[in-house]
Parts: sequence; structure tokens; C-alpha cells
Amino acid sequence: MARRMGSIRLRRASPVTVAVGALLCIFIVLFLIYPSSSPGGGSSASQRRMAGAAIHPLSPVTDPYRRIPGLDESRAPPINRYNMNNVTGTADPEGNRENILILTPMARFYPEYWDNLVKLTYPHELITLGFILPKTKEGNEATAALQKRVFKLQRYGAEQDRFRSIVILRQDDEPAIDSQDESERHKLENQKARRAVMAKARNALLFTTLGPHTSWVLWLDADIIETPPTLIQDMARHDRAVLAANCFQRFYNTETGRMDERPYDFNNWQDSEMALELAKGMGRDDILLEGYREMPTYRALMAYMTQEDKGEKYEVPLDGVGGTTLLVKADVHRDGAMFPAFAFYNLIETEGFAKMAKRLGWQPYGLPNYKVYHYNE
Amino acid sequence: MARRMGSIRLRRASPVTVAVGALLCIFIVLFLIYPSSSPGGGSSASQRRMAGAAIHPLSPVTDPYRRIPGLDESRAPPINRYNMNNVTGTADPEGNRENILILTPMARFYPEYWDNLVKLTYPHELITLGFILPKTKEGNEATAALQKRVFKLQRYGAEQDRFRSIVILRQDDEPAIDSQDESERHKLENQKARRAVMAKARNALLFTTLGPHTSWVLWLDADIIETPPTLIQDMARHDRAVLAANCFQRFYNTETGRMDERPYDFNNWQDSEMALELAKGMGRDDILLEGYREMPTYRALMAYMTQEDKGEKYEVPLDGVGGTTLLVKADVHRDGAMFPAFAFYNLIETEGFAKMAKRLGWQPYGLPNYKVYHYNE
Repeated sequence: MARRMGSIRLRRASPVTVAVGALLCIFIVLFLIYPSSSPGGGSSASQRRMAGAAIHPLSPVTDPYRRIPGLDESRAPPINRYNMNNVTGTADPEGNRENILILTPMARFYPEYWDNLVKLTYPHELITLGFILPKTKEGNEATAALQKRVFKLQRYGAEQDRFRSIVILRQDDEPAIDSQDESERHKLENQKARRAVMAKARNALLFTTLGPHTSWVLWLDADIIETPPTLIQDMARHDRAVLAANCFQRFYNTETGRMDERPYDFNNWQDSEMALELAKGMGRDDILLEGYREMPTYRALMAYMTQEDKGEKYEVPLDGVGGTTLLVKADVHRDGAMFPAFAFYNLIETEGFAKMAKRLGWQPYGLPNYKVYHYNE
Repeated sequence: MARRMGSIRLRRASPVTVAVGALLCIFIVLFLIYPSSSPGGGSSASQRRMAGAAIHPLSPVTDPYRRIPGLDESRAPPINRYNMNNVTGTADPEGNRENILILTPMARFYPEYWDNLVKLTYPHELITLGFILPKTKEGNEATAALQKRVFKLQRYGAEQDRFRSIVILRQDDEPAIDSQDESERHKLENQKARRAVMAKARNALLFTTLGPHTSWVLWLDADIIETPPTLIQDMARHDRAVLAANCFQRFYNTETGRMDERPYDFNNWQDSEMALELAKGMGRDDILLEGYREMPTYRALMAYMTQEDKGEKYEVPLDGVGGTTLLVKADVHRDGAMFPAFAFYNLIETEGFAKMAKRLGWQPYGLPNYKVYHYNE
């Protein structure tokens, strides 16, 4: 298990190699309202898109823009007002036309990730995508592959498949720890630096893309290649401020000779007396990590809480969360909840985020029986 | 002094009456690139504006948009790429064409605040303004007054006076503590709730407006009515990640019969052994406040550190900062530094922000001799 967890942490930290300092960004925005692309006025999805679009060119980055032919923009008044509806985050986001921002730190591009994303049944005209990729060779390759898919979909894809808008950020700085062999990257002492870098990347992505219309933020890691297509509706229905799905991995079980699955993300947990005691003995800058023999926490891991008889909707309160598939009400972030890149109650990154959300009065929950699947190379 | 400090805290907390929960926003964006407004092609400022403008309608909210006549946008490709320069935060922001976001939580509109803002000599085409106002009667009045000025300036003002873009957010929820008599609002036990509400408002404003181009964020309270016109250049020249000016107040001194000035913002301070000892004895949810007799901290307050012989550039390291006039490199926020609405190392709001910046490796500084002035009713 220690091996597998090492590889999780490796994967979760590697997507981003951002550090403090100047940012070099390439910023791509895609929009999907083309009066010319639906000459007949078309489908009801198309009409909804039109209705939801900003009529002014200078709309927030999370908004599509709809040009009205005949309206002379050069003579348009300089003030444009967006009388927004209540930006709610409810159990029926589709019915209430709530906007969702899907945020993904990405180091490698997996076609399966993209295909799964496109298959999500939540209305795509309500989905904005945000990516952040490192400025490394691997990051460049991933960016190129991502752009290719994005271009193909937004330009030639079926109208209902196109997303509201897409933002791609690039970050310039070098990784805190260069690629090296897995055992080195797995080392306990390297984890704090790696997760601090990851936390900063998440924050840069979040702070840059969250708009005034955003109701929900879905954190979806780039190596999540399989989710139910109704992921957003299913998770939102719980109406929780912070909600984590359970991340598993499919593998070929040589013992049984069949495909099997195993728990993969161990950052979703409930606290234990032992972990709290351990933290008490630590300095304020130390962090407590899950899954190391040197540091037995005896936390209750959601990865092991599946109880098939309780159904997909079974939920448990959590004290720590992972970021593989995490649905957050935008108001939680607007209140200031972010991913601490420093020890926060001896926790860091997504686990620190869970603690921060709790401090702000939002209780995180998890869905032990609601599974999503991690890439397996 | 306790009286005056009470009134500070009153003023600093009152601008915003946001709370957790659904946000109701009215969102206004103004832009300033009108090909029609400068028929001759005009000044070099005008040319710079043109050069800096996004040519695509769907630009980030912090960007101006320049329509190119003859370019048929309805046929434009769906992908638009922003190859951004390095987003730097340097000692010469004007020379390096760095964008600054000025953020102001506002409960009352003071014409003197606006006039002072318009007089800032930093190129206005590099300045985006962001406001957040409560959805109260007072907030409605302030919004109306603000909009009037904004409209007048952006539409009829001299081109070099117009700002890059302006965003106004409204928040729906009621104040944590309703207006009541001053002594009640001043009470120590009410301060935590009031400053938590203020912190959430600052975070909502920050998370919603920070764009990919932003180099600097200037936090400027709505009751700051007098600063040097070169405020931004003067402060940026120090090249500090977090830098606070010293907030004073002018008053008529009845003893001398002349106008005089007195220190006003006591949230800029250096820690003391006494304060650290006090914090050690506190619970993790308790906060340490400055300026209460019940809680003598013996912190060194920047308000009392003016030393005229050392000149305007004299700087001191700080452990706590106020938000009256505070210049922050955008990367500090992108790393995740925000305004904690909960006790963070027994600190809250701007003082907690200073501690968080330090935890992220950014040392705050202050300018004891560089004065800005607070409204005096």
C-alpha cells in the first residue's frame, strides 16, 4: 500500500511545477455563441445559450459573448450593466441554471480525461473550464495536446458539446523538486515542498478564474479518466458546501485473472484521536501526512468506507479532503477558503483547505460509494 | 485614544455588510477604448491604450476591449489566444506597463475619495477599479453616487483620466451586527464578528476581480480622502511584496487653534513579546486586538513611528497590517494569501493577512513617514 500511495502523491504533486514569482501565462479563451453557426435559430440549447450570453464585448472571462448583428459597438455607451440573478448554489443547479467552473491542474494530457469530460451531461453552456500547466517540456506537450482537443471541440463539435468558455494558464517557474526517481519523490520530507507547490498552483488557478457568476467549482484532477456522466448533478444534489467523491483505480488482478479496482486517494479522511495527539506534539510548521509508516495516524480513510448496501448517496462527514474530484460551492472560496501552501493546523493543500472550510463554518462531506477512477499506466 | 480607535474600527468594519450565503451582485464593467472617441488617432496615451487593448470581445474583466472596425466578429474563429508578457511586479511599474487593481470596500461614498483617486498620476489605462458595496439603504445610496461619478468620468472625462475598467459588486446579506450606537459597536466582543464580515467581503472582491494580467493590488479604503498623487509609483518603488502607508487624520486642534493631524490606523504594528505571550495563553479561536485597555499588547505601532528626519522612504518591517492603503504584489494573493475571517495565529482580517503572507515567505513592510489621510466628519 505504501508503494501505491507513493505513486498517488507523485501523480498528484507532479501536475504542477509552479512556484512563487513572476507568472508567464498564455491565456486562451473560447466562446461558443456564434450567431453564424446556427443560422436557423436552431435548438433550444442554442436559444438558452443566446439568452445566457453577455451582450457586451467586455464580459467576465467566465461568460460567453454574443454579438448582436447591427448593434454598432463602436458607438455603444461605455457603461454596461449586468443585472445578475441570485448566484445560488442549490441541489438543482441545472434547473436553476447555475454556472460551474471545472478546474484542473494538468501535467500530462490523457485523452480519456478529455473524453470523460465531454461526456458530462450537465449543460455545457453552463460549464467553464480552467487549466493550469507547468512551463516544462512535459507541460508544453500537454498544452499542445489539450489545445488541439479544445480547438476541435469548440470549433467543430456539436453545439451541445461546446463549453461556455475555456481558460488555459501557463506558469513559468521550475518545479520545487525536479523529476527524479520515484522513491526519492515519495520521501516524506519531499512531500511538504511538493504539496506546497501544488497548493500555490491551485490558488493561482482559482484566484484568476473565479468570476462573479460562478456558483460551483469542481476540482477535477487531470488523471481522473472515468466518472458517471451525471457527476455534477449527482454531487450537487447533496447540496453540500464541500463534497468529495471516492477515487479508485482499475487494475488487472493477476490473482483472480480479472479486472478489479482498488482505493486510490487517501486524502479523504476523518480525524482520529491519534492524529490529533500527533499534531499536538508537532511544531506549527510541521505537517501530518497520510499513508506513511513513520507516521501512523489511524485516521478513518474514506477510501475504505465503501458499503455497497448503502447506495451511491451514502455520505460521511470529513476532516480532510483530496482534490481528485471535489465539488465546492463558490461561496466557500469567496469567503477565503484556499489551499494553504504552509502548515495550517499541521495540514497542507487540499487537506488544509478542508480545515479552512471548517473554520469558515462549512463542513466537508464525502461519498464513499460514489466512485470515480484514476488513470492506471 | 480608545475613543478614536473605536471609531476607526467602526469605520473599517462598517463598509461592508456581507455574510456567508448567496450573493446578489450587480456587476458593472466600463471600458475605455472607443475608436470613435479619438477620431484623429490622437495622443500617445490613446495609442498606448489601443496597443494594450484586447482585440477580442471576450477578454478578461480586467481588460479593455478594442473593436477593430471591419473585422467581422461573427465570423471570427472561436479561439483567441492571449500571448501575455511576463506579468511582473517591479520597482518601475509604469516603465514596465504593469496593471494594477485598486480594490475598495465601500459603505459610504465620499466625493473626496473619488477626486483623490482620479488625481492619481499612475497611467489610468493600467488601472482597474473594483468596489464592493452592501445591499443596505446606505449601500444603495453609495452605489448610486459612485455610479454617477463613474459614468461621468468614463463617458465624458478626459481620455487620460478614464480607467481601464471598473467592476462594482453588490452583496446581498445583512450585516453581522446591525447599526447601533457607537459604544456597542466598539465593544471588544463585537469586533471579531465585524472583522470576519469585513474579511469575507475583501475575499469576495479579491477572488472575483483578480485577473491573469494583474501585477499589483492596491487596497484603498473608501474613507481615504487624501494621498500623494504619485501614491502608486512611490509605494511600488520599494519593490516590497506587502507595503502599508501610514494613515493619519486631519483635525482642528482647539488647543493650538490650528489644523493638525493625528495617527489613525493602528493595525500596522510590529509584534511584542507581551503580545506573543498573550496569544500563547489564548484559545485557537480567540483573537488579539489592538487598542483595547483590557488587552494591553505593547506592540510597536507604526502610527507612532514617524521620524521626519528619515524622509518619506523610511521603511520598517511589520507583523500586522491594516487595509486603509496597502499595496500588495498580485503574486502574494495568487499564492493564496487572503483575509482570514477566522482566528489565524490569533489574528483576523488584514492582520491575519500579514501573518499569512509571512507564512508564504513574503515579509510585510510599512512606511511610517509616508502619510495618507482618513476622512474626518
